[in-house]
Amino acid sequence: MSQTIRVTVWGEFRHEKKNPKVAALYPQGMHETIAGFLRPHADFTVRTAWLDQPEHGLTDAILADTDVLIWWGHMAHGDVQDAVVAKVKTRVLEGMGLVALHSAHYAKIFKALLGTTCSLKWREATDKERLWNINPAHPITQGIGEYFEIPQEEMYGEPFGIPEPDQLLFISWFTGGEVFRSGATWQRGNGRIFYFRSKAE
Amino acid sequence: MSQTIRVTVWGEFRHEKKNPKVAALYPQGMHETIAGFLRPHADFTVRTAWLDQPEHGLTDAILADTDVLIWWGHMAHGDVQDAVVAKVKTRVLEGMGLVALHSAHYAKIFKALLGTTCSLKWREATDKERLWNINPAHPITQGIGEYFEIPQEEMYGEPFGIPEPDQLLFISWFTGGEVFRSGATWQRGNGRIFYFRSKAE
Amino acid sequence: MSQTIRVTVWGEFRHEKKNPKVAALYPQGMHETIAGFLRPHADFTVRTAWLDQPEHGLTDAILADTDVLIWWGHMAHGDVQDAVVAKVKTRVLEGMGLVALHSAHYAKIFKALLGTTCSLKWREATDKERLWNINPAHPITQGIGEYFEIPQEEMYGEPFGIPEPDQLLFISWFTGGEVFRSGATWQRGNGRIFYFRSKAE
Amino acid sequence: MSQTIRVTVWGEFRHEKKNPKVAALYPQGMHETIAGFLRPHADFTVRTAWLDQPEHGLTDAILADTDVLIWWGHMAHGDVQDAVVAKVKTRVLEGMGLVALHSAHYAKIFKALLGTTCSLKWREATDKERLWNINPAHPITQGIGEYFEIPQEEMYGEPFGIPEPDQLLFISWFTGGEVFRSGATWQRGNGRIFYFRSKAE
Repeated sequence: MSQTIRVTVWGEFRHEKKNPKVAALYPQGMHETIAGFLRPHADFTVRTAWLDQPEHGLTDAILADTDVLIWWGHMAHGDVQDAVVAKVKTRVLEGMGLVALHSAHYAKIFKALLGTTCSLKWREATDKERLWNINPAHPITQGIGEYFEIPQEEMYGEPFGIPEPDQLLFISWFTGGEVFRSGATWQRGNGRIFYFRSKAE
Repeated sequence: MSQTIRVTVWGEFRHEKKNPKVAALYPQGMHETIAGFLRPHADFTVRTAWLDQPEHGLTDAILADTDVLIWWGHMAHGDVQDAVVAKVKTRVLEGMGLVALHSAHYAKIFKALLGTTCSLKWREATDKERLWNINPAHPITQGIGEYFEIPQEEMYGEPFGIPEPDQLLFISWFTGGEVFRSGATWQRGNGRIFYFRSKAE
Repeated sequence: MSQTIRVTVWGEFRHEKKNPKVAALYPQGMHETIAGFLRPHADFTVRTAWLDQPEHGLTDAILADTDVLIWWGHMAHGDVQDAVVAKVKTRVLEGMGLVALHSAHYAKIFKALLGTTCSLKWREATDKERLWNINPAHPITQGIGEYFEIPQEEMYGEPFGIPEPDQLLFISWFTGGEVFRSGATWQRGNGRIFYFRSKAE
Repeated sequence: MSQTIRVTVWGEFRHEKKNPKVAALYPQGMHETIAGFLRPHADFTVRTAWLDQPEHGLTDAILADTDVLIWWGHMAHGDVQDAVVAKVKTRVLEGMGLVALHSAHYAKIFKALLGTTCSLKWREATDKERLWNINPAHPITQGIGEYFEIPQEEMYGEPFGIPEPDQLLFISWFTGGEVFRSGATWQRGNGRIFYFRSKAE
């Protein structure tokens, strides 16, 4: 590992181009919004990549230079080439971290590493979501407090088609009556995977 | 194991004697109510035991003749003798099953087997509780459907001070905004443990 | 589930045709040898299937009629069609059991369900292998005793590229100085998976 | 956590006083030998404590000032006071790390946190022990290589009466034909536990 943690934030960057409402929220793409939160931190070296770049921006050189890959996708999972998925999977098994955000539960790379359907219950909604921190000792959850809330959110519900997590970190509560395992970790090969339901908002 | 499954239902049988309201609901004690659900099944041989019996009704002979011990207690955990707890623990590690119900999360035997605080958030309430079945393939959850509800319940909330379960079976949703891992299993030694938040109602 | 457990034993049935030495040991194929051990049991309904049948003998009808699929393959993993693997995977996630034997650690179906390399150390050898039963309470290991031995075996060694098992059942010791997690279980979706290093001999 | 990691190395310091052979090997006690390996590292602040000190050297003040407690004991487990064990347990559940070495598998604190017998097979021996590193991605095992050996060792064998580890790190091979899960981790409450069979030698 280099002295800084080399983060690559991957996004679809499609919805932002097609839908003016989304474009207004994320003018440079959601991946850039996420990267923007990380860039101020001196211990991260941050780059971005997206679907419509050659090899989806995930060349061998870039993967070899990535310690943690953050993956965000939701409407174009099927357009990700299997050959790229295979290379990313190999890198995770070799030790690269993978953070899958929100609808990336259906990303090919997430499903390929977990081996299950990764399906879930879904409802377009403006529910309040409360994310309970159920493992406050984990590095990911430190300093968060017992829960945090998102005032208006679509709903993701159980059953969530994942293998039993190594560590369950968050469980979400929704106004409408659902619950969801919204933060969970798995080790696969030498790599660590974190699924987190929330996205940058 | 004998041809039938030999079940011993243990209860405190104290609250039922002191509180007329509780006595009205469970005239013969809550252990007897639970046992009453099991007795009609031909594959169970059911007996009961309670706190104020000699050795709390859990003599060596009875423990040796028990395949599954169902434990219910809530106000007198401290009155259970350590020597009896030690014997029950040994039997679980040898292979006896243990089902800990509701406030038995604070029973000495449960804490001794899990090694953690087993503490939780609690609120006297009349919340609706919805228990989501998140592992429908498990023998315990088969045929239950995606969830079931209890119209009025006190609240148990996270963080629940338990080791990561071997299998998480239920997550509860409460009207008031909390969630709870309300059904979970662990193997300890040769014995299997099931914690279940609901009680007979 | 039907009243009997419907078992389909799948084998490559290639080595047996090409190599007279192998043919002498397993004249009707190794799948048939394995099936032969199961057929006498009244609680099993046993059929076989092999690589060179149409759809590798795993048609929709046969998969729908299978509770447990036993998989044996070692030299022709690459010849198994991806479309068949996808169907078998769906059936496991729906609840079909999968028993992967010996070199089936490299079967496409096993790797697709576990998401890892499933690679291991290997040495052609005539080592003695001793398989230690480390979880004698599990249904699979009951009555086996503390270990059993295979007088002459090739060696499989760690690191074994698998996700942390739900339950580790066997650890092998080899004369040459290696160890191996030779029996392990995982739940994926509604299905249960058992990897077992030994084959019928 | 303070800027350095505050380590307390606890030892029985009995055997070293009674047995001249042991005294010759560890003139200041085994705890001091272990501490000696850690002291040169600038990121550790190291102190020691032992059985025959008041409160076994583990006062509230010292526990509050400890990030990681290393525990070594083998012949006087029964002399450790239950009140001290209870305090140490509370500190682990609050977040203090615990490293249990070798025969500390039978320490009261280890058994209280794991809830099981922690028993194992044992043979006084001069076997060669080879410890296989089965999870090279874990911080504990990094840089160790695929295995290391101890030329002459007593034997610890399976079954080891522990709960399924969160992560299994080492499996030992012994000349005499045994295997052992010689390195394993568990989280309990906010604390992390590492059992490691080897001692300073």
